[in-house]
Amino acid sequence: MALHPDRLFPADATTRTIARDLYASVADLPIVSPHGHTDPRWWGENPAFANPAELLVIPDHYVVRMLVSQGTPYEALGIGKEAETDPRKIWRTFAAQYHLFAGTPSRLWIDHSLQTVFGLTERLSPANADAHYDAIAEKLAEPDYRPRALYDRFNIEVIATTDSALDDLHHHRQVQGSDWNGRVVPTYRPDAVIDPEADGFAANLDKLGEITGCDTGTWQGYLDAHRARRAFFREMGATATDHGHPTPHTENLGRAEAATLFDRVRAGKASAADAELFRAQMLTEMARMSVDDGMVMQLHPGSFRNHSPQVQERYGRDRGFDIPVPISFTTALKPLLDVVGMDPRMRLILFTLDETTYARELAPLAGAYPSLRLGPPWWFHDSFEGIRRFRERATETAGFMNTVGFNDDTRALCSIPARHDVSRRADAAFLAELVTTHRLDEEEAHAIAPLLAGDLARDGYRLTTAPAA
Amino acid sequence: MALHPDRLFPADATTRTIARDLYASVADLPIVSPHGHTDPRWWGENPAFANPAELLVIPDHYVVRMLVSQGTPYEALGIGKEAETDPRKIWRTFAAQYHLFAGTPSRLWIDHSLQTVFGLTERLSPANADAHYDAIAEKLAEPDYRPRALYDRFNIEVIATTDSALDDLHHHRQVQGSDWNGRVVPTYRPDAVIDPEADGFAANLDKLGEITGCDTGTWQGYLDAHRARRAFFREMGATATDHGHPTPHTENLGRAEAATLFDRVRAGKASAADAELFRAQMLTEMARMSVDDGMVMQLHPGSFRNHSPQVQERYGRDRGFDIPVPISFTTALKPLLDVVGMDPRMRLILFTLDETTYARELAPLAGAYPSLRLGPPWWFHDSFEGIRRFRERATETAGFMNTVGFNDDTRALCSIPARHDVSRRADAAFLAELVTTHRLDEEEAHAIAPLLAGDLARDGYRLTTAPAA
Amino acid sequence: MALHPDRLFPADATTRTIARDLYASVADLPIVSPHGHTDPRWWGENPAFANPAELLVIPDHYVVRMLVSQGTPYEALGIGKEAETDPRKIWRTFAAQYHLFAGTPSRLWIDHSLQTVFGLTERLSPANADAHYDAIAEKLAEPDYRPRALYDRFNIEVIATTDSALDDLHHHRQVQGSDWNGRVVPTYRPDAVIDPEADGFAANLDKLGEITGCDTGTWQGYLDAHRARRAFFREMGATATDHGHPTPHTENLGRAEAATLFDRVRAGKASAADAELFRAQMLTEMARMSVDDGMVMQLHPGSFRNHSPQVQERYGRDRGFDIPVPISFTTALKPLLDVVGMDPRMRLILFTLDETTYARELAPLAGAYPSLRLGPPWWFHDSFEGIRRFRERATETAGFMNTVGFNDDTRALCSIPARHDVSRRADAAFLAELVTTHRLDEEEAHAIAPLLAGDLARDGYRLTTAPAA
Repeated sequence: MALHPDRLFPADATTRTIARDLYASVADLPIVSPHGHTDPRWWGENPAFANPAELLVIPDHYVVRMLVSQGTPYEALGIGKEAETDPRKIWRTFAAQYHLFAGTPSRLWIDHSLQTVFGLTERLSPANADAHYDAIAEKLAEPDYRPRALYDRFNIEVIATTDSALDDLHHHRQVQGSDWNGRVVPTYRPDAVIDPEADGFAANLDKLGEITGCDTGTWQGYLDAHRARRAFFREMGATATDHGHPTPHTENLGRAEAATLFDRVRAGKASAADAELFRAQMLTEMARMSVDDGMVMQLHPGSFRNHSPQVQERYGRDRGFDIPVPISFTTALKPLLDVVGMDPRMRLILFTLDETTYARELAPLAGAYPSLRLGPPWWFHDSFEGIRRFRERATETAGFMNTVGFNDDTRALCSIPARHDVSRRADAAFLAELVTTHRLDEEEAHAIAPLLAGDLARDGYRLTTAPAA
Repeated sequence: MALHPDRLFPADATTRTIARDLYASVADLPIVSPHGHTDPRWWGENPAFANPAELLVIPDHYVVRMLVSQGTPYEALGIGKEAETDPRKIWRTFAAQYHLFAGTPSRLWIDHSLQTVFGLTERLSPANADAHYDAIAEKLAEPDYRPRALYDRFNIEVIATTDSALDDLHHHRQVQGSDWNGRVVPTYRPDAVIDPEADGFAANLDKLGEITGCDTGTWQGYLDAHRARRAFFREMGATATDHGHPTPHTENLGRAEAATLFDRVRAGKASAADAELFRAQMLTEMARMSVDDGMVMQLHPGSFRNHSPQVQERYGRDRGFDIPVPISFTTALKPLLDVVGMDPRMRLILFTLDETTYARELAPLAGAYPSLRLGPPWWFHDSFEGIRRFRERATETAGFMNTVGFNDDTRALCSIPARHDVSRRADAAFLAELVTTHRLDEEEAHAIAPLLAGDLARDGYRLTTAPAA
Repeated sequence: MALHPDRLFPADATTRTIARDLYASVADLPIVSPHGHTDPRWWGENPAFANPAELLVIPDHYVVRMLVSQGTPYEALGIGKEAETDPRKIWRTFAAQYHLFAGTPSRLWIDHSLQTVFGLTERLSPANADAHYDAIAEKLAEPDYRPRALYDRFNIEVIATTDSALDDLHHHRQVQGSDWNGRVVPTYRPDAVIDPEADGFAANLDKLGEITGCDTGTWQGYLDAHRARRAFFREMGATATDHGHPTPHTENLGRAEAATLFDRVRAGKASAADAELFRAQMLTEMARMSVDDGMVMQLHPGSFRNHSPQVQERYGRDRGFDIPVPISFTTALKPLLDVVGMDPRMRLILFTLDETTYARELAPLAGAYPSLRLGPPWWFHDSFEGIRRFRERATETAGFMNTVGFNDDTRALCSIPARHDVSRRADAAFLAELVTTHRLDEEEAHAIAPLLAGDLARDGYRLTTAPAA
């Protein structure tokens, strides 16, 4: 069997027993998934997945980048012009190199998916590649393997998608109009209409004006348009916004200055410094709107997106070439926090790819400002060691209650239960260590485990209110 | 019982036994406290503490900030205008949220204080809040719970306070004139007369001139005034100076250039860059004086003080809103080290809130320059995980002998034995790991444990000389 | 006995047994040493080592700096004018302070050398200093303790030296012309002819012109001269180049701009910014040449060399005063990667002294770009904890196959087997943890262990081709 029941638990027998008990108490709790990138079409149209390669290989940038890093061309993975079109051949390429994933979270997630979703307990290898392919392909043709059925089977209570501010959310409307009981909520992600360096920024603002009837040629009209879209997202069930910025810089310009900056940006005359300033200003504007409408704000900064222009040009965005840069929050967030940091209505959840900020900045900030919460380990750090580092570095200063449980943050549907399982196990391991070293009583650990497994996410994202009709 | 005798020891049975033995050998050694923030009035006047809230809640910024971060208003903690004035109600607010501290060092320190100082072995909770309050209040009325009695009971050998350069040290004089045998020494902390951005800087310099009879209107007179105050502090028992700077930058300007800079600073015409340059220059001046008078120099850089202007304005300084920033020592300290780094008379103890500097910069610097020693983990990192990270990252390059044991650095009297206990346990755990993995023999570990528990502090701070009369 | 057979293995019994088995399977594999600083004269002339102090103390900057940091003058270690000349006295000074190395890798390496090379199982101490000295001195007079015999005894398969671009490699020629079967290959290290701030840069370029017959007065001729020297190094067996730069910055200037920059640099008119730009440009030029000639490129950035001018002036370079600075690769490497990053012919091995880059930048970069591999923990981090941090932080994102096994990187001959032993034990410990926590099967761990112990180095440095005649 690929999955050992004690995986990720500490080696020490006493500690392992405690971890096992803690995990057992949360293993079957429903999944709360407040931040992720599943395709709304899955939930709206409930289509069958085409084949194993399109389900598990091609869209998974963790998998693709690792294969590419060891010399596999994108084409062999079905990506780019003149790419391989036979999904079985793509699958074989993947299986032939499955050993590359030893020691990585992808390996844990894929083993988990193969076993728990498809009943395949033998580790993927060149020898069983075809047999596994056939077994998965056969299942994918069954109604039980369509997205909504998997949502139900995975025991998901609520899942948030991440949606452009310009999206009409018709897939969400489809869900709401259906007789399916799944709760799928959108998230307001306005990067494309906030970042002057985004592709088609001017056209995006034009479209934003058309959709909302606001004059996005003026600063005031532009802000009104955001308010209108946020209200629409709220109506559609959204409880949160999300902001992917190159840096965590915020700014708080006077009204006139902001309007002048907007004019430059709107006219396409923004310098790189203007663009950064505008993004910084807009974080504070978004925060002000969050105070008004109660939307939880998320900030995901510090990724240098599409680092290789060659890869982006030939194979597109999100191909595994987003590389973190060093960041610092302390000074960068101050303008925003000076405005809303002490406001009890505000909630800002912070994420980082620079782990040095956990103990140095994020825990001290979240351990002081009532508006701040710490998001779980993100992206490269959504792993056993990553979760351990987060808890070890953040807990002593911020405690548990200033964190918001787990986000799977994934576009790979079958990895959702796998990721939550890793998180629950890693947290059980961490809590068990606290118990064995007498920093926590076992009964306290048992009270904290379900908070980390779901309650803090529900509360942190304000998902406890009734879903939209 | 709240405190388990094996707390903080490794889970592995063999390692735990070794850790237990190592700890037992140092558990009862006297406490050397060479850096901290206890109130000199306590030692001079030996007053009774007013009530449990004023002893354990209101002045403890670790406790206050955590409660604030989860929505408790400062007012409910007795801070600010229209604050709660009933200490029992403040205590109840604290007790109601004691679960927030799970996994934090505050929890360990408070449990330790309640049990070892007040005999309260049941963990604080809403249910026992009143009973605990009454028990503590009753004790506080007894003479045995006054500061000097606690000093004696805590087995403190020497404690250093941190004092403004302008302080007349009359509380220290009271101690020295009393028949009490405690050793309380001041520390020269001249930030208020060195930092051009300090509140009332110009007036502070005027006062410095008055006190010393030096002309603090000139660079030379200003330096002389420092020399005079240092000599006074030395006479009063001080062995060290302390410098809390925003950055570790040092500078070594020519005499004329320094004098010109001083003139700008003195005239209140310093730009932000001038202020930073002046602070940097003054670190080197202080180092030169240390070479002359033998005072050990401490540098505590990298905290963004009073991050929230709203909190500072309404509730004052030191309310839990000091947030670390990234720092680097390698280039910043070079001007100072070029002057005094190789001088055998010089001793500079470095502290950091940016743990990335431990292995990257501090251990290599202290493992080379004879003038440098590493201070223990500071502030947010004065915790079990923080101490472990420090030892794991610093020891391999700097060894043990380039560190200076432990500082409790606290303004919370009852936490002193608790903090030293955590430190001794954490060091025992670290040493035991080295023994179990055969990086150290058990006999060597037994030789090192008392160094870490006291000798390195005595030696590092030059406290072994006889106390002032 | 100084060395315990279970040293560095995890405390937990089950995990330790797995680590022991893994280590046993690789303990006796030949040593592949693709990067280091042994003296080519040793291999060419095979001289006897003069005495214990000259073998084990004076040239070991790890040892010297630690003694200096605790107050020993360089002179007492045989360094500087009026230095101690009696090697026995130097040895005694070392032995008297051997306790300073408790908890450091030097202690592990020296214990290992004394025991496995000289049969001395009692730990060095003041009491046995003379006896150890005599025993070592006696051995050093025997032919079995000359460099080539030690190479054979240490079971070294191949060792790379690091050589100036201007070196005539005559010691390598001596090796190749001898009947000894050792494989010693040079490495092309052109810092002295690339860094405008290097001592004697202009003269170095003159010499480069003379040696190659190229006109190093022009940009084109200068590049041709590099090509010629690289070809010569290749003929002499080199498979790699190495670049020690203050930062990892790279640049990709247009041809005309680069030529103009070169003219300024060549004329000795380079500003500090010019010098940095030129170094940055040359990394990209070196990368282009690597694509052409197949030489593996190594980058070792981020050390502030000779931090104390006083030490450098009195005692020379490489005296333990090189201190790391914070660095970041993501933006810095982009110009180079935009040119060669996706080229399957390119291989660039990255090293760092700033461990924050492991998880944040290096693993994401190496886990995406096919041209990149991660070098092992370098310098201060070539230690048990350093190796653990590297594996814990890099593996989850980059896997094992994007790393290149171990480098001993040493100028201390006897430490070579000691360092490889520490590395093999640390990797066995890490793999065993993965097995115990069921992140890896034991059989997989057994497949990975020999990769880490040698195969990845052979492959990573393209050493599998037949040695030069």
